[in-house]
Amino acid sequence: MSHPFNVTAQSQTTRARAGELKLVHGTIKTPVFMPVGTLASVKSLSPEELKEAGAQIILGNTYHLYLRPGCEVIDLFSGLHRFMNWDRPILTDSGGFQVFSLAKLTKITEEGAAFQSHIDGSKHLLTPEKSVEVQISLNSDIMMCLDQCIEYPAEKEAVRAALEITTRWAKRCKSTWTEKTGGKNALFGIVQGGMFEDLRRQSAEELGEMDFPGYALGGLSVGEPNQMMYDVAEYALPLLPDNKPKYIMGVGTPEDLVELVARGADMFDCVMPSRNARNGQLFTRNGAINISNARFRTDTGPADPECDCYTCRNYSRAYLRHLYMNRELLAYRLNTLHNIHFYIRLMERMRAAITDGEFDAFRRNFHAHWQAR
Amino acid sequence: MSHPFNVTAQSQTTRARAGELKLVHGTIKTPVFMPVGTLASVKSLSPEELKEAGAQIILGNTYHLYLRPGCEVIDLFSGLHRFMNWDRPILTDSGGFQVFSLAKLTKITEEGAAFQSHIDGSKHLLTPEKSVEVQISLNSDIMMCLDQCIEYPAEKEAVRAALEITTRWAKRCKSTWTEKTGGKNALFGIVQGGMFEDLRRQSAEELGEMDFPGYALGGLSVGEPNQMMYDVAEYALPLLPDNKPKYIMGVGTPEDLVELVARGADMFDCVMPSRNARNGQLFTRNGAINISNARFRTDTGPADPECDCYTCRNYSRAYLRHLYMNRELLAYRLNTLHNIHFYIRLMERMRAAITDGEFDAFRRNFHAHWQAR
Ligand SMILES: [Zn+2]
Ligand SMILES: [Zn+2]
Repeated sequence: MSHPFNVTAQSQTTRARAGELKLVHGTIKTPVFMPVGTLASVKSLSPEELKEAGAQIILGNTYHLYLRPGCEVIDLFSGLHRFMNWDRPILTDSGGFQVFSLAKLTKITEEGAAFQSHIDGSKHLLTPEKSVEVQISLNSDIMMCLDQCIEYPAEKEAVRAALEITTRWAKRCKSTWTEKTGGKNALFGIVQGGMFEDLRRQSAEELGEMDFPGYALGGLSVGEPNQMMYDVAEYALPLLPDNKPKYIMGVGTPEDLVELVARGADMFDCVMPSRNARNGQLFTRNGAINISNARFRTDTGPADPECDCYTCRNYSRAYLRHLYMNRELLAYRLNTLHNIHFYIRLMERMRAAITDGEFDAFRRNFHAHWQAR
Repeated sequence: MSHPFNVTAQSQTTRARAGELKLVHGTIKTPVFMPVGTLASVKSLSPEELKEAGAQIILGNTYHLYLRPGCEVIDLFSGLHRFMNWDRPILTDSGGFQVFSLAKLTKITEEGAAFQSHIDGSKHLLTPEKSVEVQISLNSDIMMCLDQCIEYPAEKEAVRAALEITTRWAKRCKSTWTEKTGGKNALFGIVQGGMFEDLRRQSAEELGEMDFPGYALGGLSVGEPNQMMYDVAEYALPLLPDNKPKYIMGVGTPEDLVELVARGADMFDCVMPSRNARNGQLFTRNGAINISNARFRTDTGPADPECDCYTCRNYSRAYLRHLYMNRELLAYRLNTLHNIHFYIRLMERMRAAITDGEFDAFRRNFHAHWQAR
C-alpha cells in the first residue's frame, strides 16, 4: 500500500494547502476538482476534451455502473479505464448515496443496505464487501467506503447510529480492500456525524485509527444552509490527519470551493458545472450567466471574455444562445466544456495562489468579483 | 464569375467521374458527400471533428437559418462561416423544400411562396430574390435557386407547371445573384420534371441555357421506388452540361451513392448518416447494425472493424451500446462521427477507384458486401 500524499505548500493565514497525491494511473495535484462521469461518461464530453480542460481525475458512480452496464461487462475491459477510454485516475463512490437517495431502499441492517433498482425494480443487497468488490471491478484509483447517509435535519441519536454503523462498515471495507487488492488502489474513509461537532469528532477519531489513504467528509450539501456547511468543514477538516488528502463530497458552487479550500479541503466533485451547462448556465468570474437571455441574441463576444477554453476561443454568445434555444446537441457540449474548464481553472488558480503565498489575496479578489454581480 | 469545375478522371465503363470544384472557401474534390448542418451545426459534432472525418463542404438550411437565428444575427458575423466556426465551403439550399414540406404553405403565386413559420406561425413570403438575398447573408459558397417542389406521385400537367415556374424563378435568382454578388459565390440551377423524361429534358434545356456554375436534380427521394430514382438519374444526368458539377439533392443510402455516382452524379447531401446515428444505426460495409442489439452488450470489438474513425479507434460496441441505451449525449456524438466518416470514406474510395480506372470493380465489390447481409 503506497499512496503518498505530499503537502507542497501551506497558506500561512488559512488552512488552504497544495499537495500531490500519487495514484495508480498518475499523480494528481490538489486542490482538485473531479468532473462527474456518472455512467462512464462525463456527459457530452470526450476524454480528450476533458484532458484539454485540464481534468486530472474523474468520478464514476458505483451504483449506476453496477446496474448498467454491470460488472460482467466492465470486467471484459479490466475496469472502467479501457471501457471509457480514460487513462488518468478515477474515483468511484461507494454506491451508498444513490441507494439512499435514488433507489427504493428497502432495509438497512448491520449486513448492508437492501434496495430495489430505480430502473427495473430488481432487488439487490449492497454490503461493504460488495461495494468494495464492485469498485475493484471498476479498477478505480480511489474507492470509497460504504457509509450510511442520513438526511438533514436528523435527530442526534439517528446521526450517531449512522456514524457508528459507518465505522463498522469501514472496517469491513478495509478488510476486503486489503485482502483483495493488497492496498494497490486507494480506499478512502468517509466521516459522518451530520451537523454535530462531537459526532464529527467521534467519527474522525474512529476512522482515523484505521489509517485510510484519504478521508472524505460525507453528509454535506444535503440541504443545510451554506454557512452551516462551512462551519462543519471548519471544525471537521482539522480533525482529519493532515498527511492525508481531505475530500468534500458532492460540493459545490465556485464560491463553496474557494471557502472550503480555505478551510483545508483538497478534493471536490460536483455535477453542478455539467448539469448547469445543460440548463444554459455558464460560469464567469462575476457569477453565472444564462445563455438563453435575449440580450445575448446579438452578442458577438465569447461566453466569458477571460476564458481560454475551446468554447470561448471559437464561439460567440450569439451562437451559443442559438444552439441552446434550438436544443442543438452541440450546445450541451460547448456549454459543459466551458463550465468544466472554469471549475478546473479555478482550482489551478487556487493552487498557484497557495504556492505563491497569495491565497488570501486570491480569495478576496474572487469574492470582490463574484459578489459584484 | 469563376467557379471552374475540372473533370480529372472519367470511368470508361460508367458515367462515374472525379473532379475538382473551386469555391470561395476552397476547392472540393468530387464525388463528394456534404454533411447536413441544418441549424448551423452538424448535429453533435464540432467543426474540427468534421474536418478530421474529411468533410470538405457542409450544407446549411436557408429556411431554418432565416427563421432562427435570422439574417440580422448572421450578418453580425458576415455569414455562416464565422458564426459557426467553419472555414471550408458551405452550400445552402433555397429554403423551398422546407416551405413546401415543413412550413404551413399558404399560397404559391408567380411572385413566390407565402408560408407560415412552423415555429411561431409568423407569415413570410419567399421569393426567388429573397431566397438569394438570404443566401448572400449566409455567404454560402454554393447557393441554390428557389424551385417549386412537387409531391410524388403527381399529374404530368402539375409537374410541367412546377418546372416552368422553376425556370422563371431561376432567371430571377440569377439576376439577383449577378447583380448583388457579381457571381462571386456560385449559384446552382435545379432541374425539376418529376419522373417524366421529356419534362426533365425540357427543364435541363431551359436551365442549361442560363449557364449556371452547377446543376442539381431536385424532386428525387420523395417517395418514389429506388429503381425509379436510378432511372431518372440515368437519363437526366446526361442532359446536364458535363463541364458543370451535378448534384443530387437529399440522397441517400450508401448503395444509392454508389449507383448515382455510376450514373454521373458528383455531389450529395443527406441527413441519413447523422439521423440514423442518433437512432443507434451504424453503417458498415456489410450494411447497418443497430447498436441497441443485445448481442453487442459484451462485444469488445469496434463498431466497424474496417473503420479508422475516432469512434472505432477508441471505443467498443459494448461501450457504444451502453451509452446509447442510457441516452448519454456522447452516444449521439460518437455514432454520428462514425457514420459521417463512413459516408465520406465511401466517397473518397469511389474517387480513388475512378481515378485508378477501377470503378467497376469497386462497385461490384461494394454490392457483394452490402448484399451479403
Ligand atoms: Zn470558456
Ligand atoms: Zn468508425
